[in-house]
Amino acid sequence: MTDQQLVRPAAMSGFPEWLPEVRIVEQHWLDVVRAGFERYGFCSVETPSVESLDVLMAKGETSQEVYTLRRLQEDADDRSDAKLGLHFDLTVPFARYVAQHFNELVFPFKRYQIQRVWRGERAQEGRFREFTQCDIDVINIDQVPLHFDAELPRIIHDVMTDLKLPAWTLNVNNRKVLQGFYQGLGIEDPLEVIRTVDKIDKIGVSGVSELLSKKAGLTDRQVGACMELAGIRGTDASVVEDITAAGVRSELLSEGLDELAFVMDSLSDLPRGSVVADLSIARGLDYYTGTVYEGKFTDWPDYGSICSGGRYENLAGSYIRRNLPGIGLSIGLTRIFAKLLAEGLLTTGPVSVSDVLVVLPGQEQRAAATAVADRLRRRGLNVELYHQPDKIAKQVRYASRKGIPFVWFPPFSEDRAHEVKDLATGEQTAADPEVWQRP
Amino acid sequence: MTDQQLVRPAAMSGFPEWLPEVRIVEQHWLDVVRAGFERYGFCSVETPSVESLDVLMAKGETSQEVYTLRRLQEDADDRSDAKLGLHFDLTVPFARYVAQHFNELVFPFKRYQIQRVWRGERAQEGRFREFTQCDIDVINIDQVPLHFDAELPRIIHDVMTDLKLPAWTLNVNNRKVLQGFYQGLGIEDPLEVIRTVDKIDKIGVSGVSELLSKKAGLTDRQVGACMELAGIRGTDASVVEDITAAGVRSELLSEGLDELAFVMDSLSDLPRGSVVADLSIARGLDYYTGTVYEGKFTDWPDYGSICSGGRYENLAGSYIRRNLPGIGLSIGLTRIFAKLLAEGLLTTGPVSVSDVLVVLPGQEQRAAATAVADRLRRRGLNVELYHQPDKIAKQVRYASRKGIPFVWFPPFSEDRAHEVKDLATGEQTAADPEVWQRP
Repeated sequence: MTDQQLVRPAAMSGFPEWLPEVRIVEQHWLDVVRAGFERYGFCSVETPSVESLDVLMAKGETSQEVYTLRRLQEDADDRSDAKLGLHFDLTVPFARYVAQHFNELVFPFKRYQIQRVWRGERAQEGRFREFTQCDIDVINIDQVPLHFDAELPRIIHDVMTDLKLPAWTLNVNNRKVLQGFYQGLGIEDPLEVIRTVDKIDKIGVSGVSELLSKKAGLTDRQVGACMELAGIRGTDASVVEDITAAGVRSELLSEGLDELAFVMDSLSDLPRGSVVADLSIARGLDYYTGTVYEGKFTDWPDYGSICSGGRYENLAGSYIRRNLPGIGLSIGLTRIFAKLLAEGLLTTGPVSVSDVLVVLPGQEQRAAATAVADRLRRRGLNVELYHQPDKIAKQVRYASRKGIPFVWFPPFSEDRAHEVKDLATGEQTAADPEVWQRP
Repeated sequence: MTDQQLVRPAAMSGFPEWLPEVRIVEQHWLDVVRAGFERYGFCSVETPSVESLDVLMAKGETSQEVYTLRRLQEDADDRSDAKLGLHFDLTVPFARYVAQHFNELVFPFKRYQIQRVWRGERAQEGRFREFTQCDIDVINIDQVPLHFDAELPRIIHDVMTDLKLPAWTLNVNNRKVLQGFYQGLGIEDPLEVIRTVDKIDKIGVSGVSELLSKKAGLTDRQVGACMELAGIRGTDASVVEDITAAGVRSELLSEGLDELAFVMDSLSDLPRGSVVADLSIARGLDYYTGTVYEGKFTDWPDYGSICSGGRYENLAGSYIRRNLPGIGLSIGLTRIFAKLLAEGLLTTGPVSVSDVLVVLPGQEQRAAATAVADRLRRRGLNVELYHQPDKIAKQVRYASRKGIPFVWFPPFSEDRAHEVKDLATGEQTAADPEVWQRP
């Protein structure tokens, strides 16, 4: 130990890290998500955490959130690394990946991607600077079948069910319905109305109405109809009749309603209320063109969306002269996990993944103890060998503190049997390392 | 499609990424490593990719390799993020983690950590700027039992065996042997000699001898003895006799030889030659104090080390006034994986993880096809549902291109049976979705 100044090892705001018993649960979650995605035949892709700024800025929209990289000892002349940044989502790198490896992929290309992303934002509840996203996307040449607009919510529903989340709803809408409806009302700039209606969550119906009338120049009748549409919700395809009842007509609206009906019909076997058509959902980003999704916890409506996505045209258009539309949904794993942890809703178990602790009675038994640990491991058990010939009570206490459920006693002499102690019951019985199973 | 300037989606040197069929193998590797570490009761820890520069620089040594972060839209006044950097290894964050969570951990604390790390180096064969490391470390209060000096190589040997790597050797040495031997020779600055001998790989025996005599001022007899020691190798504890035969004596040397003998004895059940005592291994870093490790491929001796580590005193001393020695070993997963890929030694399989493709004969069968896919998934199979009612031949071709081994035909009418086609044999038979197993 030295007298040097200590560096305070403080937690950094926005960069979560977990104790071992919490990490075990997080790993389980990641396994569940991966298994769920693979169950539907999606393959894994990982991209570097780092992209060139050209790629990150190809859409030009989210520039304020990007962390750029710089070598600490950078020469004044060599600024090449200054053109690199950490990815802020997994969609942009995926579009680059598809364009770069276009000739080597089978289309429709269905991939999942579970990785950390970084955003140079101010950290606050539900917003992190480093967090894990779980994305599924399908990208195809020229057109993406409507099939996937229904399959992606099914996959996410399936995964979230396996994760045993508290009540939540996946809200669905269709940008063609919004745009077609606004066109049918004779509104000139439907995109501006979509961006305005998207603010209902933040400024409410009255705030949006005022903006629509004063800023977008809509008539009272138009504002009224827009607000009527935004108020429509439904748990099945009959929602289409509610929309049609408003009396607005346009070709794009019909197309959007057919798509929305297809999605709601295809998902009618899921528990009622798990997928809800909500005509107030718009998703601000301009690149969404059809179905859009936004998932929310039922009990925490003000907490950010826990999954989101939608259908987009030609996302890889910045890299390749092919038309590559896609559709995707992204789970905000860290956001969900951190919320449940903060609410005390995560059940954590022991700090150890071990099934058995093999005690080390004395140095003379080291080879025998090593051998029995090895034999149990080969039979699929997670086994710790205690690290020094301490008193047996101390070795058992170590197992107990770590939540290791069984303690194994190799024989002290050749004429005695192996024994195993169940720490939950205190029972100690003879056992054969070749056949013993964890009860 | 627009006429805008395209961004070229080029591969970035030093930032590897894989096609789906390669990624499947990499995922398998990561699963094998994780299972191997957990088999010995090590628990998972992940730390943020980002640390404060205070932490990254606490040891002050590797400053030139660090990538620092900066927000793209940083205010001139707000340089707070300029104090963050990406971690360049997993040992430094682990030391910070242990100090920060000291009161919540059970000691000896045994953890594994599998994460990406970043180094702002020039990329070359075997050197990446973003890569995955797999570390196991044990850290304890005041002293780490010698037990772990033997257990860590056993774990790594076990994991590498499961990965089916080409021939490789884990070379072991002990810094106390080197330092004690040099002290016994009457050398005043043993650490300088260790750092010089560490260069044998690069400048050879003659280069090192010259440096020892001209720069370190050693006598010819001392240089001769140092080179004699560096030439000693052995596959078991008898190597100790070879060293003793040199006639040098010191207390530290005896201590080191006892430790080295313990490690070689404890591992004598492993295949001969998998662990080799190699007295030329020094590991340049000053913080190693006892056992040191370095793994190399047998057939590519000039390729960088594929795993490395050793015993260190008080690694967390920059953060906490406790004595926390440790021992660790790190697998350079990306370095190994990329080498085998480049050498054509990785066997890749299909681009898909699916067991079955369910065909969609027509829109009328959509609900039935969805239901059968769902039933098969609930029975643990990975199942794709084809995305549109294309000609059956086209649907089968899709399965074939993706390497999906079985195609499932839901009945076209109620009085017919389900059928499944094995694409490898071409055989098509009736099948019950409730009981069918992949043969």
